[in-house]
Amino acid sequence: MSDTASPVGVAVLGLGNVGSEVVRIIESSADDLAARIGAPLVLRGVGVRHVSADRGVPAELLTDDIEALVSRSDVDIVLELMGPVEPARKAILSAIAHGKSVVTANKALLSRSAGELAEAAEAARVDLYFEASVAGAIPVIRPLTQSLAGDTVERVAGIVNGTTNYILSEMDATGADYAQALADASALGYAEADPTADVEGYDAAAKAAILASIAFHTRVTADDVYREGISNITPADFTAARALDCTIKLLAICERITTAAGQQRVSARVYPALVPLSHPLATVNGAFNAVVVEAQAAGRLMFYGQGAGGAPTASAVTGDLVMAARNRVQGGRGPRESKYAQLAIAPIGDISTRYYVSMDVADKPGVLSSVAAEFASHEVSIAEVRQEGVIDDEGQPIGARIVVVTHRAPEASLSKTVAALADLDSVQRVASVLRLEGTDQ
Amino acid sequence: MSDTASPVGVAVLGLGNVGSEVVRIIESSADDLAARIGAPLVLRGVGVRHVSADRGVPAELLTDDIEALVSRSDVDIVLELMGPVEPARKAILSAIAHGKSVVTANKALLSRSAGELAEAAEAARVDLYFEASVAGAIPVIRPLTQSLAGDTVERVAGIVNGTTNYILSEMDATGADYAQALADASALGYAEADPTADVEGYDAAAKAAILASIAFHTRVTADDVYREGISNITPADFTAARALDCTIKLLAICERITTAAGQQRVSARVYPALVPLSHPLATVNGAFNAVVVEAQAAGRLMFYGQGAGGAPTASAVTGDLVMAARNRVQGGRGPRESKYAQLAIAPIGDISTRYYVSMDVADKPGVLSSVAAEFASHEVSIAEVRQEGVIDDEGQPIGARIVVVTHRAPEASLSKTVAALADLDSVQRVASVLRLEGTDQ
Repeated sequence: MSDTASPVGVAVLGLGNVGSEVVRIIESSADDLAARIGAPLVLRGVGVRHVSADRGVPAELLTDDIEALVSRSDVDIVLELMGPVEPARKAILSAIAHGKSVVTANKALLSRSAGELAEAAEAARVDLYFEASVAGAIPVIRPLTQSLAGDTVERVAGIVNGTTNYILSEMDATGADYAQALADASALGYAEADPTADVEGYDAAAKAAILASIAFHTRVTADDVYREGISNITPADFTAARALDCTIKLLAICERITTAAGQQRVSARVYPALVPLSHPLATVNGAFNAVVVEAQAAGRLMFYGQGAGGAPTASAVTGDLVMAARNRVQGGRGPRESKYAQLAIAPIGDISTRYYVSMDVADKPGVLSSVAAEFASHEVSIAEVRQEGVIDDEGQPIGARIVVVTHRAPEASLSKTVAALADLDSVQRVASVLRLEGTDQ
Repeated sequence: MSDTASPVGVAVLGLGNVGSEVVRIIESSADDLAARIGAPLVLRGVGVRHVSADRGVPAELLTDDIEALVSRSDVDIVLELMGPVEPARKAILSAIAHGKSVVTANKALLSRSAGELAEAAEAARVDLYFEASVAGAIPVIRPLTQSLAGDTVERVAGIVNGTTNYILSEMDATGADYAQALADASALGYAEADPTADVEGYDAAAKAAILASIAFHTRVTADDVYREGISNITPADFTAARALDCTIKLLAICERITTAAGQQRVSARVYPALVPLSHPLATVNGAFNAVVVEAQAAGRLMFYGQGAGGAPTASAVTGDLVMAARNRVQGGRGPRESKYAQLAIAPIGDISTRYYVSMDVADKPGVLSSVAAEFASHEVSIAEVRQEGVIDDEGQPIGARIVVVTHRAPEASLSKTVAALADLDSVQRVASVLRLEGTDQ
């Protein structure tokens, strides 16, 4: 431990929205940051793919030789803000091997390789911080790893993808269908040219893997996360949701579950869910994120804020930078990977929740009875059922739709029920199956 | 830095709701806590005022000799959960002097003596953690000191006292007057026999001092906090609030302000404020707490959860305990007091906000005009004005009430306006002056 005031050298990899904002903060808040750290921060270099043109950074700081930058002896901390998985992984491992602490916002990389990176950091006795990888500026990683370190987390449920939340908020508010809302999101820059990672839930699944790992002291990777996207959600689903005093949100849920045999397992999953309007997540709209944590002693906590964007993400990165720099100056290290529990991953069939099932049926007597019988035969208890006529464009009746909301039931039983329903002659198709969040009846 | 697994000795001072729950967690979660710390926690003793009867703790652990307990060589960390200011202060200083790290939930002590305690901890190179001192289980201290360490906090506004929030929620929901709502809160155990510390805002002011200190890197004590309680709030204020689409909440507000001369100052204040129903704090009801933080890069963040109670507070204490224990085992120290900015404290007259002023007036022509003229002559711009007749119990008109909502104005100007209004012949009395939160027009 030393109180020397020799400067802390920083290398920034990547100069996109986040990297540019981090560089700006390091410069504009230099005095404040130095006071908080106990030593000045000095930006040693910025790694970019192509050294060119005016990047808003003095030209002599730019380099495309990432390997040389992260191994410089006057660099103490490397901020990896370039993505994607490669070359970021290689750069981080190289930085760690050279004894640098690392701050990264790379959720895709962490959701695959957090274990490898953590082991390398442990071997080199350096810090690896990643607050910005989940929910942008919202402190979530640090509360889970530190504030709740004395508690037992039971469940984490969050809205962690702004693109899908924008699309679903739009569908709910305007009645737009999915394609229209996606087009609007693209036009406003909220959706990428290829929106797959967002709309099919891959981005949220990466964040779910990170959250589940730290909440349950278990290594969880993106491949362990059950995942459904939002592209099948229809205006009819929103109409049905509203009739149930609900909206629809894409949720990342990480949960400790106990099997029938008494074993503790971790379920991590991403899917669009019906959320009651009275639930705190129901009013999180547009590009905002929120994470609800339920812990044994703390009860229910919620963290809310901007989940993406250059400045908010840069806030989280710079906070991690200050922590890593303080440790350099004052001794000590930040929290390490905690994987002592190593719980098994629960397949989606192991969870139990409430369900909403809508189906198109023949409009004739006895259909509701046969539908209800299928639920009963699989021991799925019905909480609420609605049947309404469906008419064509000219107002002629062309069938009926039955919407069933169940009590809490095992996913495996529900799946069998849905398969059996689809086989019924009187059921034309099962239009939609969605899970319900936050009601426990 | 050492990876030894020798146990970490813990002394708990105080065995009330929080202390009992902390002892329970240390015992019931022993394996988890040991895995997180890297060494087992061992409870060495529990300090109580009177060693007696069944306290739910093995008798041999109980002692009334606090001084002997905190100086034991096998105690590494002391949890101060006994309050009030004394003898807690003396016990903490003694523990620190003996090289123990300290975790405390004692907001009254911290809001007076944080500087003294921090200097002692710095001299002894031990940790001083106090997450539980503000907003119970809700992580607020750690996000402000660590997650936002790279950002610039502009404002913190929170509902941090459950008793007053219960009373105000009750008045809003039922139309009860203050005395009735307080009686209800007392009957339910939400208010103490002497409710002064809660209802007059002293408890919230202590928390405001702690929040302002860490948000603005300035020593702020409870005496620096401007304070108004809720005992003057009437059902008529709630009626007027509702007409403005607002509710009334007791807020603790910490704000960086810039004087006309360009100097940065810190304002810390507690008062009942009109909060628009669309504001995230408006829906925080009953005994819940929430804190909204506005930072330059992060934007607006909100933290929400249970602000009091044995188990939630114990969650925060035990989280701090795990951090302090990790530092003992693995080397390093937690964040220290940051007071480098040492901004001057702004008197309440320096703030500017929007105001709601209600006054009983004579019901005759020209009154509104003379009232409006007073606002104009003090350069306070009126946003909205309502005048309505007031009738007595028999339906006879006995005067009128004028409610004025202003645009943003300096507090000093508003005070002069109110004094001048009270002097007008046509104004019988200024019934109420409340500030508005969260609207910036």
